[in-house]
Amino acid sequence: MPSIDINCDMGESFGPWVMGQDLELLGQVSSANIACGFHAGDPTVMLTTVRAAIAANVAIGAHPGLPDLQGFGRRAMAMTPEEVYALVIYQAGALQAFAKSQGGRLHHVKTHGALYNMTARDPALADAVAQAVYDLDPTLPIYVANAAIAKAARDKSLTTIFEVYADRSYQDDGTLTPRSQPHAMIEDVNQSIAQVIRMIKEGVVRALSGKDVPVTADTLCIHGDQPGALAFARSIRAALREEGIEIRTI
Amino acid sequence: MPSIDINCDMGESFGPWVMGQDLELLGQVSSANIACGFHAGDPTVMLTTVRAAIAANVAIGAHPGLPDLQGFGRRAMAMTPEEVYALVIYQAGALQAFAKSQGGRLHHVKTHGALYNMTARDPALADAVAQAVYDLDPTLPIYVANAAIAKAARDKSLTTIFEVYADRSYQDDGTLTPRSQPHAMIEDVNQSIAQVIRMIKEGVVRALSGKDVPVTADTLCIHGDQPGALAFARSIRAALREEGIEIRTI
Amino acid sequence: MPSIDINCDMGESFGPWVMGQDLELLGQVSSANIACGFHAGDPTVMLTTVRAAIAANVAIGAHPGLPDLQGFGRRAMAMTPEEVYALVIYQAGALQAFAKSQGGRLHHVKTHGALYNMTARDPALADAVAQAVYDLDPTLPIYVANAAIAKAARDKSLTTIFEVYADRSYQDDGTLTPRSQPHAMIEDVNQSIAQVIRMIKEGVVRALSGKDVPVTADTLCIHGDQPGALAFARSIRAALREEGIEIRTI
Amino acid sequence: MPSIDINCDMGESFGPWVMGQDLELLGQVSSANIACGFHAGDPTVMLTTVRAAIAANVAIGAHPGLPDLQGFGRRAMAMTPEEVYALVIYQAGALQAFAKSQGGRLHHVKTHGALYNMTARDPALADAVAQAVYDLDPTLPIYVANAAIAKAARDKSLTTIFEVYADRSYQDDGTLTPRSQPHAMIEDVNQSIAQVIRMIKEGVVRALSGKDVPVTADTLCIHGDQPGALAFARSIRAALREEGIEIRTI
Repeated sequence: MPSIDINCDMGESFGPWVMGQDLELLGQVSSANIACGFHAGDPTVMLTTVRAAIAANVAIGAHPGLPDLQGFGRRAMAMTPEEVYALVIYQAGALQAFAKSQGGRLHHVKTHGALYNMTARDPALADAVAQAVYDLDPTLPIYVANAAIAKAARDKSLTTIFEVYADRSYQDDGTLTPRSQPHAMIEDVNQSIAQVIRMIKEGVVRALSGKDVPVTADTLCIHGDQPGALAFARSIRAALREEGIEIRTI
Repeated sequence: MPSIDINCDMGESFGPWVMGQDLELLGQVSSANIACGFHAGDPTVMLTTVRAAIAANVAIGAHPGLPDLQGFGRRAMAMTPEEVYALVIYQAGALQAFAKSQGGRLHHVKTHGALYNMTARDPALADAVAQAVYDLDPTLPIYVANAAIAKAARDKSLTTIFEVYADRSYQDDGTLTPRSQPHAMIEDVNQSIAQVIRMIKEGVVRALSGKDVPVTADTLCIHGDQPGALAFARSIRAALREEGIEIRTI
Repeated sequence: MPSIDINCDMGESFGPWVMGQDLELLGQVSSANIACGFHAGDPTVMLTTVRAAIAANVAIGAHPGLPDLQGFGRRAMAMTPEEVYALVIYQAGALQAFAKSQGGRLHHVKTHGALYNMTARDPALADAVAQAVYDLDPTLPIYVANAAIAKAARDKSLTTIFEVYADRSYQDDGTLTPRSQPHAMIEDVNQSIAQVIRMIKEGVVRALSGKDVPVTADTLCIHGDQPGALAFARSIRAALREEGIEIRTI
Repeated sequence: MPSIDINCDMGESFGPWVMGQDLELLGQVSSANIACGFHAGDPTVMLTTVRAAIAANVAIGAHPGLPDLQGFGRRAMAMTPEEVYALVIYQAGALQAFAKSQGGRLHHVKTHGALYNMTARDPALADAVAQAVYDLDPTLPIYVANAAIAKAARDKSLTTIFEVYADRSYQDDGTLTPRSQPHAMIEDVNQSIAQVIRMIKEGVVRALSGKDVPVTADTLCIHGDQPGALAFARSIRAALREEGIEIRTI
């Protein structure tokens, strides 16, 4: 039976500020990437989110980011590999402790925002992230969607979980069409759903050029901070069920 | 053979700012309380300090504090038990991850500054700290020196390691003479050393009143941020060796 | 013609997190207490809020708070008078610069949350706040609602603007009924409005005991973070207009 | 009589962490660039430093930096012009308030570390800094050493104060030799002093190629965080005095 994981960023509230519809989305996804206090989240939010994920039987992932609350971890910062290594150990370690202390366990690591983008451009930073995950726990999977982080993870024999997107178009080399280019976003929900089902069942995606390109669809990323996130999650779940595709973590 | 642990706060540098003489003191102590990024320390400092402690064969402790870098965790803050519980899990969990990822292990937890003082005054906060340590790992010892935190730890069946001071005088009830009162500090090194040896060998301390008071001397706290810290550490080590007292963690 | 100022806390968003309905409320109030980056707000939010206040012809106030984003400045912290003095200069000075740089001017200072409460309990902290306002600009009014801060302000000959509340009941000594006691909150909108009109027109409030107590109603505080804030603001404005009471800053 | 300003970064302590020898250096320089709490400094440190500068009759400058304490403002961050504009207003405004509240006045603005470097590479950020200084006070001078920020400042008719270095060699186009290249640093004190005197008296510097290059020497930057800073400051002062060159702000 074919299957896919559905992941969503969560725990992005901070202090008095609420972000996202975590409780509702926990009913729709199979894994959660939980912010670790550097770009969003705080210890109390992390505790609450971990408890809710365990109660909803959703896999708990660490979602480490840059130390930049104001910028939500979306502003690239010039950091050394050692700084990146240390901040991944710190954040993923803290989340791992929340998971274990509440009776759960850490299921994966996925880097956030500008930190993720920095690893796509700089192999030394990708390597620092992979090394940190390996040193935390060599059996811990890492969610990847760019070549540099995937290579760094494979070099350490980490389990890589490839991420695909429903709302983004692809290029002939299997990468996403940059947002700066036309047709980068897929706005039609039915087209999004069709793309995902084909990626799962056939292992290909139709690129903008019309060519079919191979793709590994281990996990589908839902953007929880977008207005229609919950409705889209429900639609895609229903469509996947109809196609006989199971929603579960790898 | 009688023994005592010598502990010292470490890893209190932050970013470009250096504090303490960690490398020198690591040669003198048997356990280190390492700051976890809230009142001092940052991920890179934590990594460096954990590596140095492992290299020096010094036991690694988490030293969680209040989220107040500017005040160095010394300004009491009105916090709920759940906030305290969450910040201990977060900080001790992050340090545990550094220890494990570098081939070591977390040996103990000791709360810092105002957080420690808050637990002495509020049993609900003492209980939150003890619960956090228990939930992290029920075999993890906690360094204690006040009745409230000791009771909370015993209630969870945590291992309590009682802390004594060389440079502070004691009262008839076994508590420290408050710094606001005369003769709170012992400034004579020989008197300090004599007090420590008697606490270890006889299990008593001579209170200010002249009365001998029972005391449990599991670990001796050295203040690394004071000018004479290193010289004092060397003096007390030499004196303990001469008395046939071993320096090691429990 | 009788008049009253209506003030509301604003600029409490931070980075990606939105709080409050500032643009809508700016159409209803005559003065805004703008967060200054310590408990809420950041430089970009302050800039945006100051520009919007100027456009809406609303008086700009600095709303300094404790350095505690996670706690939204609502957790009391043990601070020295010099620390409080410095943080008021810093925050109010920064907001003053935004106001002037955008063609406006700083109209008043009102302390936020736990900082305000700390000044009510500790005259030395009240004095530190008043001295900071005086040293920034001796003509700068300060919004006050407790005796300690009012006295400290008068001691420096600062202009004091007395604040009253529509949704809180009063005691015989003119102070608010503590929230921990019954009937502290007035939940009936008509009763709230009647209380405010009487405070303005007659200078008295009916205390819980039934006794009429003198009160100075210079400014009315609206809580922008509450769900019905905008509706209440509209109701009270309509009622004041009907009574021939002008809404404007002093 | 020829003259030059000597400036030095100050107020770079934070909370319990001390950096630099501000009190000693205040006796040697004519202007201080005071950190404003984002990359270093806190309100209490700013207050103390401003008071000391006023007492030493040293001109007070704002030294705004990136919001990155851990990285000391030395890690480039991807920021928009509006974010940069807002953080300069915020920080320089706060320091201006300290200066005025203590009986002094803000003399200049000089951007710090990565923020300065970012303005050298991105004209839109240079323009944002210049606009912020202009909007704070159009008569406020700005210390400049790169072409982009100098141009942006001139475009707003700001007073530009050109900075030269004693310990760095120059290239034929008047820019500093990058540190990555040989002979970038001048390590011989006498050579440093000779270079400075020639820059002041003749308006030229001998580039690495041997060619004399025109240079405007309005202010000389001393690096207070380097071990020999105080000794070098004394040497250059003595040499300048001997040459009949006055040390004062423009």
